[in-house]
Amino acid sequence: MKTCEIISVGTELLLGDILNTDAQFLSQELAKLGLSVLHQSTVGDNHDRLYELLEQAAQRSDIIILSGGLGPTPDDITKEVACEFFSKDLTLHEESLRRMSSYFTAKGLVMPETNKKQAMLPADCVVFENNNGTAPGLAMEKDGTHILLLPGPPRELKPMFYESAVPYLKNFSDKVIISHNIRTFGIGESAMSEVVADLLDSANPTVAPYAKDGEALLRVTAMADNNDDAENLCKPVIDEIRSRLSDYIYGIDCNSIEEAVVPMLIENNLKLATAESCTGGLVGKRITNISGASKVYECGIIAYANEIKHRVLGVSVDALRQYGAVSAEVAEQMAKGALEVSGADIAVSVTGIAGPLSDGTSKPVGLSYIALADKNNVWVKELNTGHTNRDYNRFVNSSNALNMVRMYIEKTL
Amino acid sequence: MKTCEIISVGTELLLGDILNTDAQFLSQELAKLGLSVLHQSTVGDNHDRLYELLEQAAQRSDIIILSGGLGPTPDDITKEVACEFFSKDLTLHEESLRRMSSYFTAKGLVMPETNKKQAMLPADCVVFENNNGTAPGLAMEKDGTHILLLPGPPRELKPMFYESAVPYLKNFSDKVIISHNIRTFGIGESAMSEVVADLLDSANPTVAPYAKDGEALLRVTAMADNNDDAENLCKPVIDEIRSRLSDYIYGIDCNSIEEAVVPMLIENNLKLATAESCTGGLVGKRITNISGASKVYECGIIAYANEIKHRVLGVSVDALRQYGAVSAEVAEQMAKGALEVSGADIAVSVTGIAGPLSDGTSKPVGLSYIALADKNNVWVKELNTGHTNRDYNRFVNSSNALNMVRMYIEKTL
Repeated sequence: MKTCEIISVGTELLLGDILNTDAQFLSQELAKLGLSVLHQSTVGDNHDRLYELLEQAAQRSDIIILSGGLGPTPDDITKEVACEFFSKDLTLHEESLRRMSSYFTAKGLVMPETNKKQAMLPADCVVFENNNGTAPGLAMEKDGTHILLLPGPPRELKPMFYESAVPYLKNFSDKVIISHNIRTFGIGESAMSEVVADLLDSANPTVAPYAKDGEALLRVTAMADNNDDAENLCKPVIDEIRSRLSDYIYGIDCNSIEEAVVPMLIENNLKLATAESCTGGLVGKRITNISGASKVYECGIIAYANEIKHRVLGVSVDALRQYGAVSAEVAEQMAKGALEVSGADIAVSVTGIAGPLSDGTSKPVGLSYIALADKNNVWVKELNTGHTNRDYNRFVNSSNALNMVRMYIEKTL
Repeated sequence: MKTCEIISVGTELLLGDILNTDAQFLSQELAKLGLSVLHQSTVGDNHDRLYELLEQAAQRSDIIILSGGLGPTPDDITKEVACEFFSKDLTLHEESLRRMSSYFTAKGLVMPETNKKQAMLPADCVVFENNNGTAPGLAMEKDGTHILLLPGPPRELKPMFYESAVPYLKNFSDKVIISHNIRTFGIGESAMSEVVADLLDSANPTVAPYAKDGEALLRVTAMADNNDDAENLCKPVIDEIRSRLSDYIYGIDCNSIEEAVVPMLIENNLKLATAESCTGGLVGKRITNISGASKVYECGIIAYANEIKHRVLGVSVDALRQYGAVSAEVAEQMAKGALEVSGADIAVSVTGIAGPLSDGTSKPVGLSYIALADKNNVWVKELNTGHTNRDYNRFVNSSNALNMVRMYIEKTL
């Protein structure tokens, strides 16, 4: 199995000004290609340290992927150092220069002279076109070591990786690695792990539990000579997990509950409305993350104040007084109110204390009530995260609201 | 200046399962302490590769900070490898064992036998208490090289860093580095850079431009013997930038427009309402990210469908027919409608085509209208991002809405 190493170049990364999402993206994609990433490193835009790192990398890895430092300014030196390391001369690549100058022309701009630097490429490299920026990427080889240069900005790096780096890298992997993520909601990581404890020892496919943002997931990873064989290794294990965790599973290989729920709503021709207090629009935001959500989501009410809960959603003054804004009664009435205002088929509501500070009552930070109403019934869930982190509480609340919608459709509510 | 190096340990990082936020956090904090981070590296939970990396790190850095791999399971080997590298024996640290077992007791659990591994520490180390988990961290020294071990989960690493690592590391920095971020909105990175071009050559403080999520910022960084001297170096430069970029600046050292706008609303005793179409709740969500937003934000309407724009916000059927949902007229009426429904002092609205797909009209993806209404007037802004990325468009739209609120308060609208 070929080994691969990722080098991120940029002083802004060492200062912590930028979060290194490129390294995560590249690692994920290289794993999918069956390439083993054993090192990730970050250095600044510094000749000597980058050169030294290339020496180490060339000794231990078959393929080195560099990202960043391809810009037009003098401090961008990744390409220059890599070519020095490989003893390759830079010459003007006419086609890249033409592409870059039409990129500027399309924007009604004239290409600054400094950008020409980006069209200087080694003669015998494979050029990676940049369709989302100016700097071309490239791949080159010497003595069996391959170096790929990619631009730093994720908007440029990702499409270039798929369009140009993947075809180049496919030649190096004799094995295929396939992973499937089984996403659950409503069961903790430990409880989930216990249910599938025997499967966690499996060697191929491997089964690994993870916890993230209030959810638990299982990652099933198989290695084989080809896609079909890898899928055939995964399938019985996924089926077994599916039968054991059934109702907790909201999706396989989807990225979020909303990605599972919105298509379910569309398929069932169900319109959903939202009524949000502490989440302040987050449930609506997550639903509308999904392109096409307009088919099933028409209306949301953010009722942050009691007066709005009463006046817009019709929550009774009595309920607000007697039970308080954070109560099962108010959650229920909010959901019913949203159903009425919107004319939707179902509505979810969230009211809670997101923190970090208390709401002045004796109720704990982290407490929330989430309700779902249809024309005939209303369901309510009490939740106490035990956390005071505002972002965490709000996210987990919104996940619970979306999960109630899923359970409603699956008739497990 | 002492050099520092960050090593993140964890196979899940190499697989891209986890985004390495620890490295960013540590880099930022070390810079603040005046320690120079020249390398960040990531390796898996692998004895040989971690040992080799420690050898390289010890040659080039004064201080090595390791995060991750302190867990209770056999694959967690960071502490063991670091102690082997420094020839230190592990012995049971009674106090850590007591702390860990009360941590479990407080949760109503019995400490599993496997966790005892986490209380095994080298005799002559400085122990870092973990108040948010089980694994203690530690610092140790040999031949002038210092190694700090910190747990991987950010919820444990961050507080431990502030509580224990900072006091330990303060001894090593003879210089202080202070940075201030001047955040602007409404001016591009290049245009901003031109306005302050001469300042970008300054050596101490340095002035560096960055662009992020549709915003441009300037980072002013000074190095000096103490905080006061560093601040005195920054101040005249910040004042100069402030005078040149005045109206574009929404805040210094704040993290987002909402962090600037919510306090401005509170200070001016202005209640804000929102009416959102394409952003689907994101404006409300960002406002309510800020604890205390309830003082000024009571009501938001997510009117994703035309019918809701008409029925809840009172947008005229004529305007929707004649100009379409994505138009200046509809944005204006949405803002006025939100003002009426909410009883707030001002209201902002957003309607646009977030993409990636067209809305079926001839209007381009990325087009949006953002309006702000008060009792007497309404302002509307047309925006075309030129992008088809849904997340980007929605975020930039929401930023523009928040920025209009800022401009309204600053009377620059």
